[in-house]
Amino acid sequence: MAVVPLFSSQIFTLSLPSSRSFSFRKRFSCSSSSNIMEQSIEDESKFKEFPYVTVPHRELMVELVSTVENRLGTSLLPCTLPEHVQYFENETGSAHASLYVRSGNSSSQVDFILGSWVHCNLPTGGALNITSLSAYLKPSTDAPNFLIEVIRSSPTSLILILDLPPRKDLVQHPYYLKTFYEETQLDKQRQLLEKLPEVKPYFSSSLYIRALVSPSAILVSIEAEPSQAIRIDEIIRDHISLVAKVMLDTWLDLCACAERRLTDDESAALEKRDRIIKNKTIEIDLESSFPRLFGQEVANRVLGVLRDIYNA
Amino acid sequence: MAVVPLFSSQIFTLSLPSSRSFSFRKRFSCSSSSNIMEQSIEDESKFKEFPYVTVPHRELMVELVSTVENRLGTSLLPCTLPEHVQYFENETGSAHASLYVRSGNSSSQVDFILGSWVHCNLPTGGALNITSLSAYLKPSTDAPNFLIEVIRSSPTSLILILDLPPRKDLVQHPYYLKTFYEETQLDKQRQLLEKLPEVKPYFSSSLYIRALVSPSAILVSIEAEPSQAIRIDEIIRDHISLVAKVMLDTWLDLCACAERRLTDDESAALEKRDRIIKNKTIEIDLESSFPRLFGQEVANRVLGVLRDIYNA
Repeated sequence: MAVVPLFSSQIFTLSLPSSRSFSFRKRFSCSSSSNIMEQSIEDESKFKEFPYVTVPHRELMVELVSTVENRLGTSLLPCTLPEHVQYFENETGSAHASLYVRSGNSSSQVDFILGSWVHCNLPTGGALNITSLSAYLKPSTDAPNFLIEVIRSSPTSLILILDLPPRKDLVQHPYYLKTFYEETQLDKQRQLLEKLPEVKPYFSSSLYIRALVSPSAILVSIEAEPSQAIRIDEIIRDHISLVAKVMLDTWLDLCACAERRLTDDESAALEKRDRIIKNKTIEIDLESSFPRLFGQEVANRVLGVLRDIYNA
Repeated sequence: MAVVPLFSSQIFTLSLPSSRSFSFRKRFSCSSSSNIMEQSIEDESKFKEFPYVTVPHRELMVELVSTVENRLGTSLLPCTLPEHVQYFENETGSAHASLYVRSGNSSSQVDFILGSWVHCNLPTGGALNITSLSAYLKPSTDAPNFLIEVIRSSPTSLILILDLPPRKDLVQHPYYLKTFYEETQLDKQRQLLEKLPEVKPYFSSSLYIRALVSPSAILVSIEAEPSQAIRIDEIIRDHISLVAKVMLDTWLDLCACAERRLTDDESAALEKRDRIIKNKTIEIDLESSFPRLFGQEVANRVLGVLRDIYNA
């Protein structure tokens, strides 16, 4: 799931639409194994540098990515995205992005994990930085996906999206709600952040995005006083990191690494629902924002690959 | 849909769980037609008095009920709830409630409308007042229901739930989201209230309730300064009334009075989903809160009727 429509709310007001968190699969042909290894190392150096964000922000993302990769181990295949999708920028060099995708192997419950960062200089002199990590499961399980997105549009403001987005209609499936949300007490994590005076609920301008997330999703905007940019980094380090770790551990234990027995009909219904989400995501997200952020040529190049992957 | 789990969050902290907004149908045998007329008038006098709330609060509810009844006209059958369900109180007389149900006739899209008020004296010396109006459609249409609930737990605090709860999984049905929520721009109404400094987003303690409502649902708590009880009534009169009217008019035009062509499969799926909601509502709502609010004897009496109606 992409949460890019965030941009069409807050960030578009800066005339800076964006791309981020694309839902796509590594479907294209792989290189030879030694090339894969080289490319994988190169990908990591690009993606995992998170070169434009503050230290606590980078540490948060690196820890989350490492936790997922260490836990899932060799069940994740190396990243083999084409170079121009792994990293790209606009003509003037004012916008940069890195993408990172690793698919699950055939015996994994994981469809793929997807990391991204986007950096854009703002006309106001500041910069917009977005980092995300999402993880998608296969239709062999109905367990929720994982999503974190950290959007820093100024030194003193941050938007956080952190959720285990459900893969079933919770109204029709109260037991699913109970298993993944009530019994895990995920809402306590939301409540922990809500207690901080700088934290306010955030409403995405996209109703579809609001419908996609779970009822215990953390969607918050965090604003510090103009002179207190350091406060945002304190909140990342002392609060968001802890909450994100709990939610990711819950996802790894209960979703990515647990078996769920589904009937063929259930799997088919899941696959259909997952596909609708992906198509809707492309429509409301990438096709509108990408050209504006990276220029038509770069956008076409990257979107071409993404469309192929989505429709594979 | 009942939103009674609200009580298990805010109001239960006052040791005052409650009943309100019950989803039930007029299924029991009717009196003779003259008796129906008399009883209907009596119901109206009880329910429509809203005897314990402030004038603006009463005027809001009366206007909404009148708007629905005038618009739906004779397609609504008279209320024939048994007297002990139309009105009841606890042994000590510290808690009172009135219920009002009118079913749609056979040619109506409306399954039933349900109004309620609850009044309880609080141990602190104040009172809790809840009023609600909900309207449920039949499985012959997939259009959303309507719900308003106004909870005043002190002179200076109010919780408002106002929504057209969807009857389909919005993630799987983007066109449904577009038709009923995006094109109607219902979220603008939420944004209007959000601008008031006294208004904050409200999170029900029940994740199921959060999952039931639409992404443009108005779930807000409104707090005035201790000396400014009048401010809550101003907000009801000058803001909530207008927003509620727009949302009710949208529901009447687009949902209650518009045809939607469904296949038999779609109707069957809707009926199943509607039923799950009703069963879940009884479980998380009435069965736990009712005895505590009205005593076991009254609760049994009322719940007995309600269970029969739910399971009819």
